[in-house]
Amino acid sequence: MFVDKLIEKIKEKKNPTVAGLDPKLEYVPEFVMKKFLQKSEPVLKAASEAIYEFNTVIIDSIYDLVPAVKLQLAYYEMYGHYGMECFMNTIRYAKEKGLIVIADGKRNDIGSTVEAYSSAYLGEVSVDKIKSPVFDADALTVNPYLGFDGIKPFLDDCKNYGKGIFILVKTSNKSSNQLQDIKTQDGKLIYELVAEYVKEWGSSITGKYGYSSIGAVVGATYPKEAQALRKIMNNSYFLVPGYGAQGGTAKDAAANFNSDGLGAIVNASRSIMCAYKSEKWKNLYDEHSFASAARAEVIDMRDKLRDALN
Amino acid sequence: MFVDKLIEKIKEKKNPTVAGLDPKLEYVPEFVMKKFLQKSEPVLKAASEAIYEFNTVIIDSIYDLVPAVKLQLAYYEMYGHYGMECFMNTIRYAKEKGLIVIADGKRNDIGSTVEAYSSAYLGEVSVDKIKSPVFDADALTVNPYLGFDGIKPFLDDCKNYGKGIFILVKTSNKSSNQLQDIKTQDGKLIYELVAEYVKEWGSSITGKYGYSSIGAVVGATYPKEAQALRKIMNNSYFLVPGYGAQGGTAKDAAANFNSDGLGAIVNASRSIMCAYKSEKWKNLYDEHSFASAARAEVIDMRDKLRDALN
Repeated sequence: MFVDKLIEKIKEKKNPTVAGLDPKLEYVPEFVMKKFLQKSEPVLKAASEAIYEFNTVIIDSIYDLVPAVKLQLAYYEMYGHYGMECFMNTIRYAKEKGLIVIADGKRNDIGSTVEAYSSAYLGEVSVDKIKSPVFDADALTVNPYLGFDGIKPFLDDCKNYGKGIFILVKTSNKSSNQLQDIKTQDGKLIYELVAEYVKEWGSSITGKYGYSSIGAVVGATYPKEAQALRKIMNNSYFLVPGYGAQGGTAKDAAANFNSDGLGAIVNASRSIMCAYKSEKWKNLYDEHSFASAARAEVIDMRDKLRDALN
Repeated sequence: MFVDKLIEKIKEKKNPTVAGLDPKLEYVPEFVMKKFLQKSEPVLKAASEAIYEFNTVIIDSIYDLVPAVKLQLAYYEMYGHYGMECFMNTIRYAKEKGLIVIADGKRNDIGSTVEAYSSAYLGEVSVDKIKSPVFDADALTVNPYLGFDGIKPFLDDCKNYGKGIFILVKTSNKSSNQLQDIKTQDGKLIYELVAEYVKEWGSSITGKYGYSSIGAVVGATYPKEAQALRKIMNNSYFLVPGYGAQGGTAKDAAANFNSDGLGAIVNASRSIMCAYKSEKWKNLYDEHSFASAARAEVIDMRDKLRDALN
């Protein structure tokens, strides 16, 4: 079961950090880019190969420290099918290193279409009676706007393949209030209503630590809301984006955890991938030591989260 | 401007039908599948090549009759990067035939991530100072759950590249009521609130026929709601799924149009792609005449829509 595997990795690494592999091209060191621009055409292919190298070197440098990585699909789709091949290969590489992989695609649809998404990212696709996994991530982020019809096929694959989903509940951006913070006639906020659905939808897929494989995305920039949501979804795992570069602190993120120190994973992307360029680390590292800078930031973040949780 | 181009194509073909290219493998005739299974490995590649052939033969058979096609991304993503290459090539082929192409991906995210999606599907991606279009569709479907932060980068590309988006407002599935039909404290339904946002967000990008390039997805299975939404979003183009196989009739779909006969495009996928297998056409066509069956269904649908609109 996904959530049990996740919790065991978190305990093993003593770290609830998810390293976000959201490889904007400006993060990739120039010497890496140059190598692939000389080697491959078209440029979309060269970019995808450079990103794959960048990703794998970072993974090599941090896989012993973190339980999971999260790949933001948009940064792969933007290089077309080359990017999607890089996405697939990065997932495979991360899994070989023992990491849990979350595909951040915020997918949503209904009926057989959502089944197709689920097969692509979590389950298997059948062609000529041969079943093949495709991207084969461990979990996928999902958007709830279409209701349970858009969730059910994912639930089935979570059960059949030991996978998980994280449903958007409250996002970390400012305009999330335009829909998510609307008060309903019953006095509830929309994101509280979605939280209740997440709790309900996940109730049939609970693991041995009492948590469900159906989790929630809850932005780290809203710690007050996080505490309220923690009460509604007491046994859902939270995926918390917004740490570091997006303004969330370890203390903000801590509001998402239960008193058992479990219940949340905290994602940081830019602050890790781009540590070598940051004010904090750039005096110690340069583009040739980007992987060491990423490692230093991961250790720093882990220690700050540990402090905030104690 | 996207919406003007769309309206002109609709007027030229006298038809507001969008042919949905949602190629489930069970739709692809066996003789086509066999050919590619013998030719290519792995099976995901063979499936993608078979789908490309199926798509292009259908496009050849109907491009003079319809203004636009809609590609549901899930049915391409499910074959991995091979499927995404097929998606890209199908878009290119359809555009060469003069068709408008809508990518149905219901994408959603914030900040630079949504910029990446927008670059991938509507705009251009910059690598080594070279700007390349990637999938280069004319329009993309988008999910509104994250508010305006998730829409703004698409708006910019709609302006810069003459593209469009269709924002989910009211979907055709049963459980769409779990979120979309919730009544707010102001007595509005959530989908009505989203409709007001769509109207507002699209107001700065209105074309010469008075319509905006920022449209809405409104399910054909709810004609009453469609009429109410028509009033709120009087100058938004509606993308209406759910015709045919999903249970919507031409009369249901007609509720989405304005009195000028414009304002909506009606999508049908299975009823066209799979016409050769349907009760309605299977006595006249077989798998070898699948393209003729698709053409017959497109003509029948066009005529039914014309009748319902008169």
